Amino acid sequence: MAQTADIAIIGTGPAGVSAAITAAVRNKTVLLFGDMSDSSKLARAHQINNYPGLYGKSGAELQTLFKSHLESLNITVTNQKVTNVYPMGKTFTILAGQEQYESKTVIIATGVSFGKPIPGEETYLGRGVSYCATCDGMLYRKKKIAVLAYSKSEEKEASFLADVAAKVYYVPLYKEKVEADSRCEVVYGTPSAIKGDKFVQSIELEGAAPLEVNGVFILRESISPAQLIEGVRMDGNHIAVDRQMKTSIPGLFAAGDITGTPYQYIKAAGEGNVAALSAVSYLAIA
Amino acid sequence: MAQTADIAIIGTGPAGVSAAITAAVRNKTVLLFGDMSDSSKLARAHQINNYPGLYGKSGAELQTLFKSHLESLNITVTNQKVTNVYPMGKTFTILAGQEQYESKTVIIATGVSFGKPIPGEETYLGRGVSYCATCDGMLYRKKKIAVLAYSKSEEKEASFLADVAAKVYYVPLYKEKVEADSRCEVVYGTPSAIKGDKFVQSIELEGAAPLEVNGVFILRESISPAQLIEGVRMDGNHIAVDRQMKTSIPGLFAAGDITGTPYQYIKAAGEGNVAALSAVSYLAIA
Repeated sequence: MAQTADIAIIGTGPAGVSAAITAAVRNKTVLLFGDMSDSSKLARAHQINNYPGLYGKSGAELQTLFKSHLESLNITVTNQKVTNVYPMGKTFTILAGQEQYESKTVIIATGVSFGKPIPGEETYLGRGVSYCATCDGMLYRKKKIAVLAYSKSEEKEASFLADVAAKVYYVPLYKEKVEADSRCEVVYGTPSAIKGDKFVQSIELEGAAPLEVNGVFILRESISPAQLIEGVRMDGNHIAVDRQMKTSIPGLFAAGDITGTPYQYIKAAGEGNVAALSAVSYLAIA
Repeated sequence: MAQTADIAIIGTGPAGVSAAITAAVRNKTVLLFGDMSDSSKLARAHQINNYPGLYGKSGAELQTLFKSHLESLNITVTNQKVTNVYPMGKTFTILAGQEQYESKTVIIATGVSFGKPIPGEETYLGRGVSYCATCDGMLYRKKKIAVLAYSKSEEKEASFLADVAAKVYYVPLYKEKVEADSRCEVVYGTPSAIKGDKFVQSIELEGAAPLEVNGVFILRESISPAQLIEGVRMDGNHIAVDRQMKTSIPGLFAAGDITGTPYQYIKAAGEGNVAALSAVSYLAIA
């Protein structure tokens, strides 16, 4: 069954948290998607000196304050990775893991950790390249796959894939200690190309031999906006917004790093607030 | 002697404080003008629930945190009211009280407490209407004046004027208890028109008899941007800015309520950060 909400917010950095808080204060129902675990990007930030009122906090301390703020307003976080957003006219359909959600408005606050696509990534998307272990894992029963893991939290995704696939190569692309499932073969290297004919056949790595695989799971903290929501107007690598944080799609707003520089916590928090209030206005007239 | 600074910031609400903090973190010299006393607008705010990380703080508590943040970065506040900003080519000249300052860039973060002009105010500006007791008080030696006081902190300005003028009518336009200098005659009423021929002759009040005066001091927390800096492009009552908080005048930036709705603390703080970083970029190429 689809859940519905007034405002769905994708991302739990300062922009997403701020949007959720303002939406809740305005008595809107909120679906907040993200990962506020200790391995999240914010929690790993060093000292932050220019968030007014909170001098010299670490990212982990700031995240603890954000969590407690969300709890004070009874806002829960749905810890699922959103893979697609589809505008359906009056509502949006949101795919996250194997669940489907519905919302009247959406705020994209995913940050910019998606990086550049790997050569071949876009060519083989849906033909061996996947962004979601729980969604697509079953397609690779008894096959060989590579997992490109951009954060430590992907270790549990790899475990799930090891339940299914015949062989899992695990390529950690983060700095923390690697504690992957013992059924995975850990390979250290930097992905340089995904190759194949109709479907993926191999992945090439700098610093390691190529891996022959049927599938490549690219597990980044967030996926690029063009992949997340087709047709949204971009400004280079960022979602184009106006001063009210409106995108080119009615009912769709964006906030934080995804809308452009400067990449700053307090800028993101401010934009989350504006995006939420713009969504509130949109709901009033929609 | 004129003081100089990399970045002058006018206003000590969330936008101005945020701009000052980011400018200091970026090692720029800062001149921060404003009033962070207990009677300031922020200090009088009720509970603020949507400033992420600081749930349920009162305006006074938030201001205390802001002050302590400024102190941690050795930023001092110049408690003088800025009456004019003049672009001089490569620098700006800033008039505040009877002092003159210089800065390479300016960020306007004065908020929107200036309200609508009183009928006749603009007509008689410089011909009996003044915004600055210390600047223009001496022009009214042994004359009759009215002081329109929009905040309690103007009581000390009225005392200064009572030293000079033959008669001071004090019109309090705030909610706090009135404790004006005993030499002032307190008159309760709402200003409706300033009248005269070449110069001011009287002020009309709703709820009180007209006052025959030679001068009217209009002491608001801030003055309108069009009066503060001539020629800056406006968007209705707000200073027009782009997403980088640039105004129509090179080197001049704006942040917070003065740039438009929503009037929100966290939005203002975010914009102050962006304005400061834009000023930093401008300084690098100027």
